[in-house]
Amino acid sequence: MTKILAFSASTRRDALNRKLIHVAVDATRAAGGHVTLIDLADYPLPLYNGDLEEKDGLPDNAQRLKALFKEHDALLISSPEYNSSIPALLKNTIDWVSREWQGESGLVPYQNKVAAIMAASPGNLGGMRMLPHLRQVLNALGVLVLPGQFSLSDADTAFDAESGALKSPARLHSLVLDLVATTQALKKA
Amino acid sequence: MTKILAFSASTRRDALNRKLIHVAVDATRAAGGHVTLIDLADYPLPLYNGDLEEKDGLPDNAQRLKALFKEHDALLISSPEYNSSIPALLKNTIDWVSREWQGESGLVPYQNKVAAIMAASPGNLGGMRMLPHLRQVLNALGVLVLPGQFSLSDADTAFDAESGALKSPARLHSLVLDLVATTQALKKA
Amino acid sequence: MTKILAFSASTRRDALNRKLIHVAVDATRAAGGHVTLIDLADYPLPLYNGDLEEKDGLPDNAQRLKALFKEHDALLISSPEYNSSIPALLKNTIDWVSREWQGESGLVPYQNKVAAIMAASPGNLGGMRMLPHLRQVLNALGVLVLPGQFSLSDADTAFDAESGALKSPARLHSLVLDLVATTQALKKA
Amino acid sequence: MTKILAFSASTRRDALNRKLIHVAVDATRAAGGHVTLIDLADYPLPLYNGDLEEKDGLPDNAQRLKALFKEHDALLISSPEYNSSIPALLKNTIDWVSREWQGESGLVPYQNKVAAIMAASPGNLGGMRMLPHLRQVLNALGVLVLPGQFSLSDADTAFDAESGALKSPARLHSLVLDLVATTQALKKA
Repeated sequence: MTKILAFSASTRRDALNRKLIHVAVDATRAAGGHVTLIDLADYPLPLYNGDLEEKDGLPDNAQRLKALFKEHDALLISSPEYNSSIPALLKNTIDWVSREWQGESGLVPYQNKVAAIMAASPGNLGGMRMLPHLRQVLNALGVLVLPGQFSLSDADTAFDAESGALKSPARLHSLVLDLVATTQALKKA
Repeated sequence: MTKILAFSASTRRDALNRKLIHVAVDATRAAGGHVTLIDLADYPLPLYNGDLEEKDGLPDNAQRLKALFKEHDALLISSPEYNSSIPALLKNTIDWVSREWQGESGLVPYQNKVAAIMAASPGNLGGMRMLPHLRQVLNALGVLVLPGQFSLSDADTAFDAESGALKSPARLHSLVLDLVATTQALKKA
Repeated sequence: MTKILAFSASTRRDALNRKLIHVAVDATRAAGGHVTLIDLADYPLPLYNGDLEEKDGLPDNAQRLKALFKEHDALLISSPEYNSSIPALLKNTIDWVSREWQGESGLVPYQNKVAAIMAASPGNLGGMRMLPHLRQVLNALGVLVLPGQFSLSDADTAFDAESGALKSPARLHSLVLDLVATTQALKKA
Repeated sequence: MTKILAFSASTRRDALNRKLIHVAVDATRAAGGHVTLIDLADYPLPLYNGDLEEKDGLPDNAQRLKALFKEHDALLISSPEYNSSIPALLKNTIDWVSREWQGESGLVPYQNKVAAIMAASPGNLGGMRMLPHLRQVLNALGVLVLPGQFSLSDADTAFDAESGALKSPARLHSLVLDLVATTQALKKA
């Protein structure tokens, strides 16, 4: 069974990327993936600081996130773009999870993972400047990031007001089908 | 007079980038620049969150940083590389300072600024994967980032143990000379 | 006097980037810049190959381009995006011009130059994936690339059919004004 | 059976990337991959130009390369870095192969391919500025680029003078093992 960990990198209550992750999770489940959707607001972390880490070790929430990453085979991430790059919340989460802990390499939660990355933005670029940065960060940690990505421009008018469904879901469906299929194929191997 | 705001993106007490910013500030002053060196540890900020901003407005420290950026003509930044990209501390600072406030565009603290960017790392790449991301973020905010950059690899052996000086300072001196000269030229114009 | 060398990285007869460079050259001249507009089709070059260079030296057209770069203070470039990055024609031109020749460093044609970069594309991204690559290449050669850039999406409907003028020229004018002003300021210094 | 197409993006006779591709091909064969090693010097192509394509169609060598890409399941590429990015020879090859031809989408030669990318350079950065650009180009064409990559710095002293073997082959072996395993797993699926 393919276990996929999903989250949005915006914790704002009405965030476009929250809407997108919900739609994507539904589509992934429909495609046969077993998804755990978490809310990063439930895992508050201080800004990473080496002195803090040395004094207190890994914060409890970083340990919980590490455990979650390790229990899953794949990641499904939806993130806003802030100033052409990755939001601090997402980068901070990735960095804490990548720290060595109790003698285990910080790469362990990432290695042999598959990832699908998405971005929603109200503008016409749809996060296209952030996605290459996120891809590079995940690649450097050993994550196999699928070549497809879902970039949703004009996101404030992209969802049906009543149902919350995407008006044009084809590219999203194609991405999550690829996520489930690739993760399954590599897990069997 | 050329006013330059300098800071390290690592607040760790013995951080390599702290050492580097001190050496760079000395060199910039010797080159005729008037430098304000700040410590980001004195400006703690919560991780950016849109709901928080809507409820409470801009945190005091973000307002103080905004004012500092606006009083200066140039930026001198030294940053570590975390997982191939920008540390959350630096990205969070840049993002808060870029927020609209009291009707003023968030670009104001950045526009018409010149910047010199630097990175120190204990490895052999010297932050070369982070610097293009930082350059892109600052460019998108309207900052004129100098083409030169100072990438310090093997930084744990790059400083003289007694004096704290860089063993090979030529490239750093060239960068800060360019920073002072370019900022002066554009200010006069 | 500010001397600016301008060219399009597409040599196709009806190329959108040809149209854009013409409009941009007119605007630059109106802003007080002295512009030389060249057509890369007049400077055909073989694909760069080290053995060829060793045997025959720098091709005549590379030498002519080197001389042109050196006579000017700034570059104004408009380029299409091919497969998310720089077209081979433009990269090949930049690479040949960057070769050492008769004992002179290949950086000489680039150093102390200012550049404004632009992209026109028929799609909705307007070359936004190519521009960061081009910026990085020019930065690495010592060119001061202006933070602003002109990205023209939906370019096949962006020009007035009769006059050839841009329907929305404000951002372009802002960029070329900055090009002229920055180049003048740095030349005087 | 896993069919892998391999080539170096330098056609110089004694190129470091030629040496690297030979070593990598041997290692890939030892890992069970069936490799076709081609020399791009055998497939000379004009610089891509839209007018040329419209008049004469796809050059014979572009058609031959298209056919080769389509017959294989994976790509193994070794490339030098020129001015922080992709050499024109490689970009030109990728762009010609990506052109639509006889009604078939230009993505067909790329889709569902796995790729491993490598770089050798005489300097200390080992092509680390080029590799993210190449990765982005291949990703945009639908290629699944493995997160690992082989970056060989100080390449002029990295090979044994007599045997031509890499002095430190462990990271290369790990990459090609991953290439064979991932390609096999996805082919079976």
